[in-house]
Amino acid sequence: MTERSANEGRARPSISTTRLEAFSDGVIAIAITLLVLELVPPALSEGDVAQALLDQWPAYLAYVVSFASIGAAWASHSRITDHLERADGALIRMNLLFLFFVSVVPFSTAMLGEYLRESDAERIAATVYGVNLLAIDGVRSVMWRHAVSERLIEPDLPAEEVHRIAATSAPSLGAYAVAIVVGLLAPTVAVVLYLVIALYLLLPLGALFRRRR
Amino acid sequence: MTERSANEGRARPSISTTRLEAFSDGVIAIAITLLVLELVPPALSEGDVAQALLDQWPAYLAYVVSFASIGAAWASHSRITDHLERADGALIRMNLLFLFFVSVVPFSTAMLGEYLRESDAERIAATVYGVNLLAIDGVRSVMWRHAVSERLIEPDLPAEEVHRIAATSAPSLGAYAVAIVVGLLAPTVAVVLYLVIALYLLLPLGALFRRRR
Amino acid sequence: MTERSANEGRARPSISTTRLEAFSDGVIAIAITLLVLELVPPALSEGDVAQALLDQWPAYLAYVVSFASIGAAWASHSRITDHLERADGALIRMNLLFLFFVSVVPFSTAMLGEYLRESDAERIAATVYGVNLLAIDGVRSVMWRHAVSERLIEPDLPAEEVHRIAATSAPSLGAYAVAIVVGLLAPTVAVVLYLVIALYLLLPLGALFRRRR
Amino acid sequence: MTERSANEGRARPSISTTRLEAFSDGVIAIAITLLVLELVPPALSEGDVAQALLDQWPAYLAYVVSFASIGAAWASHSRITDHLERADGALIRMNLLFLFFVSVVPFSTAMLGEYLRESDAERIAATVYGVNLLAIDGVRSVMWRHAVSERLIEPDLPAEEVHRIAATSAPSLGAYAVAIVVGLLAPTVAVVLYLVIALYLLLPLGALFRRRR
Repeated sequence: MTERSANEGRARPSISTTRLEAFSDGVIAIAITLLVLELVPPALSEGDVAQALLDQWPAYLAYVVSFASIGAAWASHSRITDHLERADGALIRMNLLFLFFVSVVPFSTAMLGEYLRESDAERIAATVYGVNLLAIDGVRSVMWRHAVSERLIEPDLPAEEVHRIAATSAPSLGAYAVAIVVGLLAPTVAVVLYLVIALYLLLPLGALFRRRR
Repeated sequence: MTERSANEGRARPSISTTRLEAFSDGVIAIAITLLVLELVPPALSEGDVAQALLDQWPAYLAYVVSFASIGAAWASHSRITDHLERADGALIRMNLLFLFFVSVVPFSTAMLGEYLRESDAERIAATVYGVNLLAIDGVRSVMWRHAVSERLIEPDLPAEEVHRIAATSAPSLGAYAVAIVVGLLAPTVAVVLYLVIALYLLLPLGALFRRRR
Repeated sequence: MTERSANEGRARPSISTTRLEAFSDGVIAIAITLLVLELVPPALSEGDVAQALLDQWPAYLAYVVSFASIGAAWASHSRITDHLERADGALIRMNLLFLFFVSVVPFSTAMLGEYLRESDAERIAATVYGVNLLAIDGVRSVMWRHAVSERLIEPDLPAEEVHRIAATSAPSLGAYAVAIVVGLLAPTVAVVLYLVIALYLLLPLGALFRRRR
Repeated sequence: MTERSANEGRARPSISTTRLEAFSDGVIAIAITLLVLELVPPALSEGDVAQALLDQWPAYLAYVVSFASIGAAWASHSRITDHLERADGALIRMNLLFLFFVSVVPFSTAMLGEYLRESDAERIAATVYGVNLLAIDGVRSVMWRHAVSERLIEPDLPAEEVHRIAATSAPSLGAYAVAIVVGLLAPTVAVVLYLVIALYLLLPLGALFRRRR
């Protein structure tokens, strides 16, 4: 039966999957590019421009972390849709939820950039930011599980590849949870952890894609 | 003759339909992502940051409702273009009108976020917002009717599917009309109704796409 | 020889043309959607919100005219790329120039929205705006001529269709020139003329696409 | 073995390359279009509007230079992806780095537009801007070298074409380095140099694409 549904899937080009990808690419690309609007050159009246620019370092750090995190989310999302053959209604709704959390990142990034190094406020900002990234990663992880269990993925995808993709989520979800707790004590350390997690998520891609050759 | 035109349509890949989808996806994706620009972290000078953040709840509510509404509009629009084989000039103009109302949503959302819980102003904001969503849904409904009557859709689409797609519009159009009237008395209740309608529009997708397997 | 180059063009799918379209769609979709950022709800402190909203009519008018003008530019641009088989370097540069003038529209729209009904300033705004639209239409017209003379278009496109596409430009270019002059005396009248031109550009599409069936 | 991997690459359409292009097109298109948000009509209270508009010339100059530079970066990037057959993890990460520097351009453009003709600050702005453009060009150059050395490009691409694409980078990288040094002494001159480099990068395209016919 899997055979049959796969053939049907091929006979009728799955237009919805194409638009799902195109729309997702659009939203992720816009969210990652809108981040730059949070970077504003300090007014000349502030005196020493060089110093004023350096004092904005929390905004630059937040920008870099968010860019890497959304970039990693895009790469992980691509890995799912690359193997997707069809989409069902639940997957489309999950995908909208995924895009919701991605498109909220510019707001939590703005909070981080403005509140970091400000007592009390920075704790709130780091927590909201961490929960936001955790939500992106969590929804993405659930999407993959759903796609596998509902047989929406390519039937010829090796089981080990299926497990590998699912397996990359577990450590990052745990790491986000740890970083959120760390953020309650040391928000800046948590932000650095978020950068490390994003880079970790980006790195295994190399191994995965190399196997394709 | 329908037979012939359908075959011609296939022989000559309908590039216009592809660009119609790509352009629409672009505009909808941008509109849904621009919504986040209305969320601004409160200034630190406002004292209790946590309280100031909570006081912004109308802006968060407006954000969620608009995200769900544009998401539902995208899903409904996809369902039309998925079955579209060709586009005529009238459809292209209707599509531009559809995109016009979608791209205006960030403005009506900003009004809602700022005016909700402010006497007088909130009534105006809820009405403008409701009319905006009604217009999106109305144009989308007219687009489908036009596509069906002008035989722009796939000739092999079952009649029941055609009716089903048309039928989902009727209750949502009515619900928007009711919510607009409710908004004159209780604007916040109306906003919650708009969220319910958006979720209702997103839910039947599951059933529709499951039939494809 | 035209025969041979056409076949070669088909053997080697013209990826550049695809990216040219995708990139152009992206820029045009973003420009048309960014227009909404110029619409800002008046502050509640301004007293009568309903009156304050109505007083913003020049901004709404500018928004509608710009949306229709960019929409018309997108439709005209689609008509060119639909018939394009290959792109040369000159066309790519012209296309960038076309996109440059399209992406400047939000600025000239902001000027129009702010300066209309303000003596002196409105004359400048209407002129800049008109020159902007004229430039979009002019570059688009030159692009088509270049594509035809360099045989970049589909070799089987009927000569009458080639002339028809070229012919739609002439009246609109003249109309823009007239409206710019009118704008020196009566800026608001000129803005209405720009709307009429945009609608005129959108209307003939119906006839053109109907012929495809 | 190269033969085999190339054939495999064709048998299994490289979806990732498609999304790599689509996502890149999206980010570049948004970055180039967001530039316009830095252009703000001067307030009417500033008296002579015409003079106030003319006084903004650094913002216009920065806008034109950045539009040309991002346009050139897009064209160069297209030339790489046009010849790309597969993507590996390293290329995907390099591409994200490329997009990072492209999406930062609106910020460095804002600095240039605000600080040009202001002593001290303009030196910083011109340097940051130059380093930004140099980084875009440098990453793009490394991407091509990587794609060639890892055999990710079409196997039938003539060696001379490979060298030609690599060769266009060398002079522009050197020119950016020179312009950055010039900018320390004469920032405005450096900005004009950046415009010249962007136009130089756009011009050779004509020759390259003409060979395709």
